[in-house]
Amino acid sequence: MSRPMLSPADDGNRYELTSPTAMPRAGGFLWNQKMMIQVTCRGYAVAQFMQPEPAKYAHAPNLEAKTFMQPEQNYYAHHPGRFFYIKDEETGELFSAPYEPVRAPVDRFAFSVGKNDLAWTVEHLGVRVELTLSIPTADVVELWSLRVSDLSGRARKLSVYPYFPIGYMSWMNQSGEYRPDLGGVVASSVAPYQKVADYFKQKDFKDKTYFLCEEAPDAWEVQQQAFEGEGGLHRPTAIELDLLANGDARYETPAAVVQYRLALDANASHDYRFVFGPAFDDAEIAAVRARYLHAEGFDRARADYAAYIASGTGCLRIDTPDKELDNFVNHWLPRQVFYHGDVNRLSTDPQTRNYLQDNMGMSFIKPAVMRAALLHALAQQEASGAMPDGILLVDGAELKYINQVPHTDHCVWLPIALKVYLDETGDYDVLAAAVTGKDSGVTLTVAERMHAAMDWLLQARDARGLSYIAQGDWCDPMNMVGYKGKGVSGWLTVATAYALNLWAGMCEQGTHIDGALADRSRHFRSGAQAVNRAANEHLWDGDWYARGITDDNVVFGVSKDVEGRIYLNPQAWAMLGGAANAGQRASIFEQVKQQLHTPYGVAMFAPPYSAMRDDVGRVTQKHPGSAENGAVYNHASIFYIYSLYSVGEGDRAYELLRQMIPGPTEADYLQRGQLPVFIPNYYRGAYHQYPRTAGRSSQLFNTGTVSWVYRCFIEGLCGLQGEIDGLRVAPQLPKHWDGIRVVRQFRDATFHVVIQRDDIHEIVVKLDGKRLPDTKVTGIVAGGVHALEVTIPR
Amino acid sequence: MSRPMLSPADDGNRYELTSPTAMPRAGGFLWNQKMMIQVTCRGYAVAQFMQPEPAKYAHAPNLEAKTFMQPEQNYYAHHPGRFFYIKDEETGELFSAPYEPVRAPVDRFAFSVGKNDLAWTVEHLGVRVELTLSIPTADVVELWSLRVSDLSGRARKLSVYPYFPIGYMSWMNQSGEYRPDLGGVVASSVAPYQKVADYFKQKDFKDKTYFLCEEAPDAWEVQQQAFEGEGGLHRPTAIELDLLANGDARYETPAAVVQYRLALDANASHDYRFVFGPAFDDAEIAAVRARYLHAEGFDRARADYAAYIASGTGCLRIDTPDKELDNFVNHWLPRQVFYHGDVNRLSTDPQTRNYLQDNMGMSFIKPAVMRAALLHALAQQEASGAMPDGILLVDGAELKYINQVPHTDHCVWLPIALKVYLDETGDYDVLAAAVTGKDSGVTLTVAERMHAAMDWLLQARDARGLSYIAQGDWCDPMNMVGYKGKGVSGWLTVATAYALNLWAGMCEQGTHIDGALADRSRHFRSGAQAVNRAANEHLWDGDWYARGITDDNVVFGVSKDVEGRIYLNPQAWAMLGGAANAGQRASIFEQVKQQLHTPYGVAMFAPPYSAMRDDVGRVTQKHPGSAENGAVYNHASIFYIYSLYSVGEGDRAYELLRQMIPGPTEADYLQRGQLPVFIPNYYRGAYHQYPRTAGRSSQLFNTGTVSWVYRCFIEGLCGLQGEIDGLRVAPQLPKHWDGIRVVRQFRDATFHVVIQRDDIHEIVVKLDGKRLPDTKVTGIVAGGVHALEVTIPR
Repeated sequence: MSRPMLSPADDGNRYELTSPTAMPRAGGFLWNQKMMIQVTCRGYAVAQFMQPEPAKYAHAPNLEAKTFMQPEQNYYAHHPGRFFYIKDEETGELFSAPYEPVRAPVDRFAFSVGKNDLAWTVEHLGVRVELTLSIPTADVVELWSLRVSDLSGRARKLSVYPYFPIGYMSWMNQSGEYRPDLGGVVASSVAPYQKVADYFKQKDFKDKTYFLCEEAPDAWEVQQQAFEGEGGLHRPTAIELDLLANGDARYETPAAVVQYRLALDANASHDYRFVFGPAFDDAEIAAVRARYLHAEGFDRARADYAAYIASGTGCLRIDTPDKELDNFVNHWLPRQVFYHGDVNRLSTDPQTRNYLQDNMGMSFIKPAVMRAALLHALAQQEASGAMPDGILLVDGAELKYINQVPHTDHCVWLPIALKVYLDETGDYDVLAAAVTGKDSGVTLTVAERMHAAMDWLLQARDARGLSYIAQGDWCDPMNMVGYKGKGVSGWLTVATAYALNLWAGMCEQGTHIDGALADRSRHFRSGAQAVNRAANEHLWDGDWYARGITDDNVVFGVSKDVEGRIYLNPQAWAMLGGAANAGQRASIFEQVKQQLHTPYGVAMFAPPYSAMRDDVGRVTQKHPGSAENGAVYNHASIFYIYSLYSVGEGDRAYELLRQMIPGPTEADYLQRGQLPVFIPNYYRGAYHQYPRTAGRSSQLFNTGTVSWVYRCFIEGLCGLQGEIDGLRVAPQLPKHWDGIRVVRQFRDATFHVVIQRDDIHEIVVKLDGKRLPDTKVTGIVAGGVHALEVTIPR
Repeated sequence: MSRPMLSPADDGNRYELTSPTAMPRAGGFLWNQKMMIQVTCRGYAVAQFMQPEPAKYAHAPNLEAKTFMQPEQNYYAHHPGRFFYIKDEETGELFSAPYEPVRAPVDRFAFSVGKNDLAWTVEHLGVRVELTLSIPTADVVELWSLRVSDLSGRARKLSVYPYFPIGYMSWMNQSGEYRPDLGGVVASSVAPYQKVADYFKQKDFKDKTYFLCEEAPDAWEVQQQAFEGEGGLHRPTAIELDLLANGDARYETPAAVVQYRLALDANASHDYRFVFGPAFDDAEIAAVRARYLHAEGFDRARADYAAYIASGTGCLRIDTPDKELDNFVNHWLPRQVFYHGDVNRLSTDPQTRNYLQDNMGMSFIKPAVMRAALLHALAQQEASGAMPDGILLVDGAELKYINQVPHTDHCVWLPIALKVYLDETGDYDVLAAAVTGKDSGVTLTVAERMHAAMDWLLQARDARGLSYIAQGDWCDPMNMVGYKGKGVSGWLTVATAYALNLWAGMCEQGTHIDGALADRSRHFRSGAQAVNRAANEHLWDGDWYARGITDDNVVFGVSKDVEGRIYLNPQAWAMLGGAANAGQRASIFEQVKQQLHTPYGVAMFAPPYSAMRDDVGRVTQKHPGSAENGAVYNHASIFYIYSLYSVGEGDRAYELLRQMIPGPTEADYLQRGQLPVFIPNYYRGAYHQYPRTAGRSSQLFNTGTVSWVYRCFIEGLCGLQGEIDGLRVAPQLPKHWDGIRVVRQFRDATFHVVIQRDDIHEIVVKLDGKRLPDTKVTGIVAGGVHALEVTIPR
């Protein structure tokens, strides 16, 4: 059975995988404010922590380039992981839990992903190994518990070897040794530098990696190569000996390996606890030991962490005919939204569009976080009204990598994120909040800064009225369309109309805050109309909207293109922003279906580029099906899905929305290779060109997608969207569902909602048994608990 | 037998290792003007080529940081290599040649390192595998020949699988497939970029990697993971099947694996040829195939390459009681000197001191190269007379990494390198050659630029007369001694005196070129005296010279220091530059012996630092024994050895010189872990602290050491140094040698030299049987062949 299963344990929200080979990259992730760790079912792990930029405490065996997380790529024998070898001392037989590096076919395997921990149960040679990884809320520490049990019914002699590779810490300095005083392995290094100034930045780095054992081991090895010997990781030479050699590492690659000689009575168990992480010095390591490395420390940390994750529970609980969907939406989706909003992907300079969308999702979880993020971002607005490419989060942070490349779309995300916040909270007072510019020192209200941003969008257009793209818009790698300063973005043009309309709408609603907003509303509405007229004049290609026009005036993403013929984003946003009329929308639905739908979701564009088009840029250099080149790029897909809900196309929307979550068939799971515990940033595309790899998950849980997915469930499928004075009710259930139940938290009130189909022609909404005149619940009072019966036409 | 052996083949200049496990990192290297490749006895390989900056065509399985070569570090299962699996189809047994990844204990193993190729013979399962790697002179192509022979005396059914991992080419785009039209595997990628400007730099990169087969294979696999499967590299799943699956790689890590089903008659052999390398496009791949992939192409390339290496034969051939020493000095040492001088370590911005020293060695091989390098370097002299931190070699090159950190020693190397050139050629005309500044456009003679450089050294001193160190001198990582602008270098002070004296001497000799040089000579002599006075006043610590004085006026490298108490360089150069008188020299010999001598050479300083001293800098952050922190850093050792020869201490010198070449005992080889085919940049030090790792070779063949080693043999041990008008004869044989024979090429004449001890009191030199009045041969005519009998006292 290779299909992941919902586990009955832990409130039904765990996912379990019972084969280590069927979906070898499948895993789960944990995070707190300072670290994140992604671990596969087989034991490979990528862990990062902040100091303040992301750093590692377990490394690859060679010098790794600093880059964003790339978990889709292959793991290899020596990739960092957390491994536990078990040797039967009576027979010499060996296996490892979870699975790597020995890869023995075990009798039973279960990888269980919970919201607060990852756990494995592995049985082989009459031994059960139970492993659990959890992390605390406030420190960079992995908490590992290990239980070894006899299943054979006879007394056993085993050796147990936790093996935590530490890897190539530094070309300048690395060493490691077992420290009896600290009770574990401590590996030391110094972050290399060449320029003097870097020394002062780096001298307080946590350059030590520790692996501490609650129970003192019988032997240890700290040198990677001495441990492996000629046997290799699948049969380490050091394990052939009775005892490890108690070696050290001197400018050699360190690893933490300890050995316990364990005599187990028949059917008995033995428990171990270990902690693993980075530290600045011995004192910090000793403090970690004192705080965590005992049963009480583990228990307290687990309870604290569970409370932390529970604080990110969302505002929606659904009960539908699709139990796997329910599980995802009720448990994993808000967790992923919370991750993004709470820690901003653990970066110090998130891209502005990511920062705003990630925090947008917090409107449903902790709206105050979104409010603060909006003010923080606006404080970095430039004098022109433009938003910078990234938002700096800590002192000393710098714009790095892609944030050094000029993009023109950042202002668009302001009204989008703000609208969700206002809908969810009704807090229009925020429009009058004062925001002092970080560099300029100039103080303006939120509304004034929003006006400036929208006016910046209006002016950043060419003579035709189309929006300049510079070196990119939402699509980072479309970097050569407009680098000479002339090229325009079809998507950004219609997105500008959407942003202007959204803000105009908020201005209309906000005249009680400032009467002048009425005038601004008219100004931006009329701007949006002009933008949409330009879009229809220059970008409508007959059956869909073009993606853009290059510096050299070549329209692309149009029917005459053999590759990159149709892009999803301009279609979605033309619907959101109002450019597309009903006839255009019908044409778009059809073309998207014919050209972009695949069994694994809707592609970002098609056909994928097979070679460079140097008037478009990096997107055309990516591998067909990888990331942006013709992939099912979920962030683009969800815009389209959201736009479908926005025009009442709930059936079309649901089909694509359900595809975004791996499963529910075994074939789908195997092809995606991912557990349904997060939505990845993309699934491989190029379905027609490369069906073998299409649908494969990127395994990357960082994505602006998830806040929109949550919106789609809340506002679209359940139709329970906030308005300034209440909760609008307009469900769009898929045709094949007769009804669902929903619990919706809204403005501190709780609504128990039952949605059912009946043979009626018009929606009927009853609040606490009483039919409402409109489909909106108003007069909501914090603390209220209500029954909401919603009847919709079949 | 784990001891490397001289092989009788190929003029006696090959080294052979008969165990793959005794010295697992031991290997050899090949290079041409565009590439270099270092391959270990077990099959791991690091290959780089220039486009124009160094690039790779076989990669690690994860993103590798760009850095200098670090071959001392561990290899790991998936490190790039060149592997050949052999499967017995009748029994299913498997092994791999050379050794990795199967690591089967084979019946016979021989790794044979030649000057022009690397070869292996491996026997197992009644099969002999013979492998040879060579490269051509003008292209980036590996030429692999493989012969498979039956040794069992019965007909065999085998499968032969060359496996060339290609690795993680690009996060943006990677794929691979078998191309019947090209006859091999072609993997494609696009070098990633984010900034538009980088696209134009990179678009002509050779981003494809090909593996072509002369004979069409029966099957192939191009996807790394599909090849390995659950079996891992030691027993790949794909090899368990009858035929490889003919797979492709689509945004997956590519590998080139092909399968030949080989039916061999009893005692028969079958030959294969393969080429591996990078290319821009299919046309280039087809051209490589046409040019090389056949017997004639291989033969021609091998002949051309042998001629290329032979063009780098040095000016010295020795015949001493130590045959391994002879082999090293006659074959490998000039080859390594030639490598440095011919390709400048395959970098585009060599550090100025490296560039000058590497080319200095070419004075003994191709003096015209040294002359051109001097003019090229001087053209980049700054208006102040200072030399830049690196010399740019190609258009568009930039100063990178350490070359962005200001160092103050670069002018010192000018007279040092020039002196060797003048001694070897007598070409004093070069002093009048015109050099136009690259940036300034100002034209000055070589002599004028030398004056400016020497005057710059004179003025770059503090009020005490000591030389400022800024962020480093010869010792790169001593970067915090003077970063505030006050700290001074003890070494640079005495080195300045040496440089001034050398140049003053050349000025004296060169008055026939320009009469004004006599005055300049006096000026610089007197400058040198002043510098030496300052050194003796402020730096002599009673028994040795201090290493420097920090910004905060702390003298270091002195007797009161617990770590870093004595540094080698200030002692060596105080002897070279004349600061040390006879009494001081005696004291230095004794202190160096007591504090710095080890069984593996003389350490750069001692005791090594165990922790950061942040008034000294990076050197103290390196691992004790690694690179500069207390290692046997050969470049520093050789300065000391050279200084010993310069003051007539030939016995002391020889002891240390011989230690620099691995061997000749088995224990020494095993501890060094290196074949005596090059001198590495360092051997691990910290002998007293970490005896387990002391002596281990860095395996890095890039080092400024070798031109000095060659000097030591030529000028010191053999005592056959050029002067303006002839060849000075002053051998310094070690005490335990009674005599040696030498062939010395000098100014296009050949001297067959016999040096013998006798019971005399003074050296006697006979030219063609006739005793010379002086110990100098003068009146040398190109093309002459002479017998030189030298008798020296016992």
